[in-house]
Amino acid sequence: MSKLPNKKTQFSEWYLEVINQAELVDQAPVRGCMVVRPYGNDIWEMIKGVLDKKIKDTGHRNALFPLLIPESFLKKEAAHIEGFAPELAVVTHAGGKLLAEPLVVRPTSETIIHYMFARWIKSWRDLPLKINQWASVVRWEMRPRPFLRTTEFFWQEGHTAHASREEAEQEVLLMLSHYKDLAENYLAIPVITGQKSEGEKFPGAEKTYTFEAFMPDAKALQMGTSHLLSQSFAHAFEMTYQDVQGKLQYPWLTSWGSTTRLVGAVVMVHGDDKGLIIPPRIAPVQVVIVPIYKTDEEKTAVLFQAQSIKDRLANTVRITIDTDEHKTPGNKFYHWELRGIPLRIEIGPRDLSNKQAVCADRLGTKETVLLSDLETVIPQKLDALHHALYARAEVVLNTQWIQKDTLQEIIDATESAIIQTGFCGSKECETVLKEYKLSIRCLLEQKKHSVCFKCTLPNTCDAVIARSY
Amino acid sequence: MSKLPNKKTQFSEWYLEVINQAELVDQAPVRGCMVVRPYGNDIWEMIKGVLDKKIKDTGHRNALFPLLIPESFLKKEAAHIEGFAPELAVVTHAGGKLLAEPLVVRPTSETIIHYMFARWIKSWRDLPLKINQWASVVRWEMRPRPFLRTTEFFWQEGHTAHASREEAEQEVLLMLSHYKDLAENYLAIPVITGQKSEGEKFPGAEKTYTFEAFMPDAKALQMGTSHLLSQSFAHAFEMTYQDVQGKLQYPWLTSWGSTTRLVGAVVMVHGDDKGLIIPPRIAPVQVVIVPIYKTDEEKTAVLFQAQSIKDRLANTVRITIDTDEHKTPGNKFYHWELRGIPLRIEIGPRDLSNKQAVCADRLGTKETVLLSDLETVIPQKLDALHHALYARAEVVLNTQWIQKDTLQEIIDATESAIIQTGFCGSKECETVLKEYKLSIRCLLEQKKHSVCFKCTLPNTCDAVIARSY
Repeated sequence: MSKLPNKKTQFSEWYLEVINQAELVDQAPVRGCMVVRPYGNDIWEMIKGVLDKKIKDTGHRNALFPLLIPESFLKKEAAHIEGFAPELAVVTHAGGKLLAEPLVVRPTSETIIHYMFARWIKSWRDLPLKINQWASVVRWEMRPRPFLRTTEFFWQEGHTAHASREEAEQEVLLMLSHYKDLAENYLAIPVITGQKSEGEKFPGAEKTYTFEAFMPDAKALQMGTSHLLSQSFAHAFEMTYQDVQGKLQYPWLTSWGSTTRLVGAVVMVHGDDKGLIIPPRIAPVQVVIVPIYKTDEEKTAVLFQAQSIKDRLANTVRITIDTDEHKTPGNKFYHWELRGIPLRIEIGPRDLSNKQAVCADRLGTKETVLLSDLETVIPQKLDALHHALYARAEVVLNTQWIQKDTLQEIIDATESAIIQTGFCGSKECETVLKEYKLSIRCLLEQKKHSVCFKCTLPNTCDAVIARSY
Repeated sequence: MSKLPNKKTQFSEWYLEVINQAELVDQAPVRGCMVVRPYGNDIWEMIKGVLDKKIKDTGHRNALFPLLIPESFLKKEAAHIEGFAPELAVVTHAGGKLLAEPLVVRPTSETIIHYMFARWIKSWRDLPLKINQWASVVRWEMRPRPFLRTTEFFWQEGHTAHASREEAEQEVLLMLSHYKDLAENYLAIPVITGQKSEGEKFPGAEKTYTFEAFMPDAKALQMGTSHLLSQSFAHAFEMTYQDVQGKLQYPWLTSWGSTTRLVGAVVMVHGDDKGLIIPPRIAPVQVVIVPIYKTDEEKTAVLFQAQSIKDRLANTVRITIDTDEHKTPGNKFYHWELRGIPLRIEIGPRDLSNKQAVCADRLGTKETVLLSDLETVIPQKLDALHHALYARAEVVLNTQWIQKDTLQEIIDATESAIIQTGFCGSKECETVLKEYKLSIRCLLEQKKHSVCFKCTLPNTCDAVIARSY
């Protein structure tokens, strides 16, 4: 293990090195793919647990659909195939033979799920139909980066069908609000939500909503999206049902997804030069006890007390003791700091006689706590750390987020800032941004600007412009 | 919904129809693949939950490996590629280009996981390494059957590396014992465990252990396997580590897996002419309350009591109320019986005045229970039902399982029986069975026979012979 690069001055190197040293991920021997190692997966399982509960509590049910999709399915919706064609991985041979029709490894599952929806939805009684799938998808990636852009990534994809446009739009906004809650109240990452512009929306959707976070390098990270697909896929897959009056209708569709990218966001937003900082509510281990002793006698007494603390707290927090005999306490501090464990309890012989322990949080605050107070103090400290991390991230966001009026001002500022500006809504003015590796991250409801940053026609809605991952 | 075929006389039709009507699964538009519908997935999630806990409690950690594997990886272990070559799905094109090297969709992950193990295992301190993955795999299937044989199926695959052969063998047998516990104490399915013969073991393994259940049609179902891979994969992937003395060593490897096939086993073993019977410990819904009323006044009183019963029991059992206004109580009984819900509570106006309810279990026993006794009685009834299902399945197994001495006797009996016989251990005598669509399901430690069923040379160990799925 070597020292980590400086997060501020070598952000990109720091990111790759911290996820490697903390054993979150490793490079796979297939271009652009990652191996999610146990600690990375533990964090992903925590995030999945929170999100899966939200998905189920809002009346959706998980199902499993095939990972191979007939190529012709993708071609049924014109915008959809145009968007995904360059990224597809194609199975041409199987069972020792050339296939009559190639199969694509799913880049997303709208087409195969809508094919099934068309079989299942016959009557208004079958609506709403609210399905979710946890799976991996493959999109051939030219500039891979672990968690942020990988050829295969892990995600959930929700797919629903409704009797009315209003109900579908409510669903899209409801799931967007749950995503925002996940980001802010579990990952401790402030996000902005809004609609995507025409140039950035999902291929085949009428509207795409996004929740976007901003990284310390002022690049935007799309954390997930929620799409109002409306009826184009329903037409493409001949999905019709009889309404209450017996008339044939097309349902209104939505889809929404979020991915292992969220783990990358947690790393980038919260980590520091010592390593990761995992927000307490999704930390697989929230508290580590490091016993400190020299003699055998001290060891017996300290380990006994460490075990007793663990037993007392195990129902309330996710806690472990580091009993490794081959490491000094200093080595252990280093090991757990690198992995971003929110709280450390140090306990040695002197603490025992004083009936206390030292609690150190991952942001560097140390405090001596009476052993009898631990049940009360530890959950409080975890909660405080969540809020401290959120507040710190919010300060960064507020500092980065500035107002600009013209294209030149925007170009000059985006190395270190996220820009809010006026936008006429035209594709022409949006396309210009590509030359500067910029994009509209989302549209805002508030209007602080009167004219478009490019054409100076009247502003239709403010836009947030930034570089992005 | 039409009446189900008779389970006894039309077993195969019954199976396909019951999984369809109970909405466990649907046929996918890709040959041999299935769509696992929400209820099928709910059952799979229950099974996953039990097994995931066992896997974690025994010190394994979940990780995620790519679903695409370079074709050359599979060729590194000679027996492995020979076994899997005919079943592979191959990606030849991606990102709009012909790939320099084709990628296979994983049929199992030994090769890619061992490639990563070789990077991670450097010293004896890195051992044992105990990893598990929940994923889907693809094996091109010529005779697909939902849950039992599908081109894509869902599973867990454990992969471990150890410093000694003894430790690896212990691991293989430990996980086999957990599989047996899952089958018997959760799925209520008696299984036999034992080693696979040379002709049936995993391609690349030194030894394969299996747990096998026997279906009502006397066909064997391999429920899962646990392999001692020994060192051949370690050699193939140049996986070496320094032992305590500093000498280079190859680790000893294992792998073990079980699949969505378990859902198929539950259906076949327990179901009846009314539909599924889901064993209580894995039933997503264990108890359904059916309110019975005619007048609005009765409705209010009955629904109030139904809700109160649900609230009282919700912490102990998985319970729901069927409040569907469009169905009669009779329709509801039918609906939930088809889905195999273990217990039904019926409550009507007369029950209310008597402070009681009717409890009907899925095997047909009805009993009137005082409302005040429900907290005690319901968990007892669920437990009793588990044991009743197990006992019933055990009777079937014991009836099917018979002793035979010669090939001709075996052929004559296997339409309706599972055969225990003597076996010399040779590949020649095993291969003969293929002509009759029979196979050795596993080898037993006990010896009831003195000579081989075929060559009449001395018996080396008894073999269980049957038709199989």
